[in-house]
Amino acid sequence: MNVLVLGAGQLARMMSLAGAPLNIKVSAYDVRSGDILHPLTLQPLGHGLDTAIAGADVITAEFEHIPLDVLKTCEASGKLKPSANAIQTGGDRRIEKALLDKAGVANAPYQVIENEADFKRAINEIGLPLVFKSALDGYDGKGQWRLKNDENATIVWQEISSFLADPEQREGQSVIAEAFIPFDREVSLIGARNSRGEMSVYSLTQNHHVDGILSVSIAANENAALNKQAEDMFKAVAVELDYIGVLAIEFFDVDGQLLVNEIAPRVHNSGHWTQQGAACCQFENHLRAVTGLPLGDTGQILPTAMVNILGQSSVPLSVYRDAHVHWYDKEARPGRKVGHINLTGSCTSDLATRLVALSKELPEDAYPELTIIATDFASGV
Amino acid sequence: MNVLVLGAGQLARMMSLAGAPLNIKVSAYDVRSGDILHPLTLQPLGHGLDTAIAGADVITAEFEHIPLDVLKTCEASGKLKPSANAIQTGGDRRIEKALLDKAGVANAPYQVIENEADFKRAINEIGLPLVFKSALDGYDGKGQWRLKNDENATIVWQEISSFLADPEQREGQSVIAEAFIPFDREVSLIGARNSRGEMSVYSLTQNHHVDGILSVSIAANENAALNKQAEDMFKAVAVELDYIGVLAIEFFDVDGQLLVNEIAPRVHNSGHWTQQGAACCQFENHLRAVTGLPLGDTGQILPTAMVNILGQSSVPLSVYRDAHVHWYDKEARPGRKVGHINLTGSCTSDLATRLVALSKELPEDAYPELTIIATDFASGV
Repeated sequence: MNVLVLGAGQLARMMSLAGAPLNIKVSAYDVRSGDILHPLTLQPLGHGLDTAIAGADVITAEFEHIPLDVLKTCEASGKLKPSANAIQTGGDRRIEKALLDKAGVANAPYQVIENEADFKRAINEIGLPLVFKSALDGYDGKGQWRLKNDENATIVWQEISSFLADPEQREGQSVIAEAFIPFDREVSLIGARNSRGEMSVYSLTQNHHVDGILSVSIAANENAALNKQAEDMFKAVAVELDYIGVLAIEFFDVDGQLLVNEIAPRVHNSGHWTQQGAACCQFENHLRAVTGLPLGDTGQILPTAMVNILGQSSVPLSVYRDAHVHWYDKEARPGRKVGHINLTGSCTSDLATRLVALSKELPEDAYPELTIIATDFASGV
Repeated sequence: MNVLVLGAGQLARMMSLAGAPLNIKVSAYDVRSGDILHPLTLQPLGHGLDTAIAGADVITAEFEHIPLDVLKTCEASGKLKPSANAIQTGGDRRIEKALLDKAGVANAPYQVIENEADFKRAINEIGLPLVFKSALDGYDGKGQWRLKNDENATIVWQEISSFLADPEQREGQSVIAEAFIPFDREVSLIGARNSRGEMSVYSLTQNHHVDGILSVSIAANENAALNKQAEDMFKAVAVELDYIGVLAIEFFDVDGQLLVNEIAPRVHNSGHWTQQGAACCQFENHLRAVTGLPLGDTGQILPTAMVNILGQSSVPLSVYRDAHVHWYDKEARPGRKVGHINLTGSCTSDLATRLVALSKELPEDAYPELTIIATDFASGV
């Protein structure tokens, strides 16, 4: 079975590793170079996109910012899973917000901003504080602004209007104003749906962002009612999209009520814990879903924490003793995601003890807030 | 980190998969063709053994039947782990038996057979029944004879003497006579030792052979005293060999007393269960040991059974629902190991129930005795 992945980063790489035992051969389309690569060796396979599409049994994506013409060509082959519509939903905040409303899942009130009049109306109708997010290409906190009080409205509008006027921006760019949600914490749910409509979800995982980038995700001891709430919302969204593959949903937890923050129509950084913590990891389950195999067991085996490695080319040797380190074979540049650490515990309190110990082994400047996150987690269990 | 593996089969393939997250790049030397391949894609890497040796940080082996000149060249580079001596020990029954005696671990009485006089002396001195095994190239039950009573001595000697006289035989071939051990069962222990002398072993696993080939291996609920006995013997052998890497030891269990049957200086088929059942699998631990990383956790997470797939190109889709299937991307020929199934249970009795169910899903002719093995296991828990 040949699977072509649109995108040639670490998610395609980890799909390739998860696919090999299933005799699923993964090739990857590098959106920047246009090359078809082996996602593990990054060696060009010597043919172009058309040949890759023709040779693939299934085409899928590792990220949502795929050029529309490529998506359309892939969709026309009848092999693209999830659909171009589902992938675009993750890549365009306007489509995403409309979908969430259509699926009837709770999410923050919003308005589309094209001009200053829209901007002012959002302030009046939704009220402050507001968060503004670019409709296209927004990820890891890029293309975001916050407005807490009227005094800063002029300066924020200036920033947004120059952002929109920037000739580097993609055609059709706009900005979404959303009510700022005073959430207690951020959690996410990863689940899979196959073409027979079967669905299976992992446990909720709690996410800790630092400067807009995921730093730590902890899947441990989640409240069953909250898991159920998230699962129901997952199912509503997945069915609405007629989704095939792994889908990630990020939520705000506001006093036990979940609001969808955003969806990612793909395997997701907050699901990396499943490589050690779940019976069948998100990468394998994505491939199972898109290739028509039965979904694998999403049950949690062990409480697990995932710590992103940003811009570091190594970790202390002692980290290998207790944890699983997953490198992406990428050059370490400041802030770049180059790997992650999965840490399991025999129970939640064991995991907490280990996470505190891990935070002491890692340099604080490279893992800001990890000590605080670990200590908070330990004090809560 | 670059690791060159001598041998380009499924063990090198699974090392490659386990090494990628550690940024360990595995290349493989195909002993038959002399090519250096990527063990996953099996694509030639365009250079020969000398270049591969020069470019490797570490050289290791996936099997013990490596031509002596290749072993010596690799050893001369100072990069070979385990040592050529350790690898040869696994490939020559005479060296192996001498090692076991030297390490002081219990094993079956034996004699080397070069001629008919040796053959007769073995019958007189060790007594019947006897098992005869080729000293070189013996695996999966090939090159073995049994002698139960004197009446068959002539015919067995004829077979052995023509075997030894066969011009196809490797130089230096001989046969070892061993006392037949009336064992209750066969178990094996997989463990790792690194260059600092640190050792860590997995739980014992019970092996079921059919026609001399491993069919099923079950790692569940082993007796702690027996595990300790095996661990002590593992340590004696590993220290005697100054071993670096993963080492497998097969034992006969005779009423709670273990005798070493044979050793394999490498990752082993009876350790495949560790991919799902242990915190860190044998492939990762082998790479950790030879590259100088701390050994990973060999603790058992879940009771696990491994079922070999021999000569089948597919399994029923339902098998994927409950189990992990590991294919080797090999053409299915009768009796050829082309993959394995790892099945876990939440507890031993759950595993037994699942194994019985699995045995019913798989065709009996392709998995002979699986139903009996599963039913026996279930009745014993």
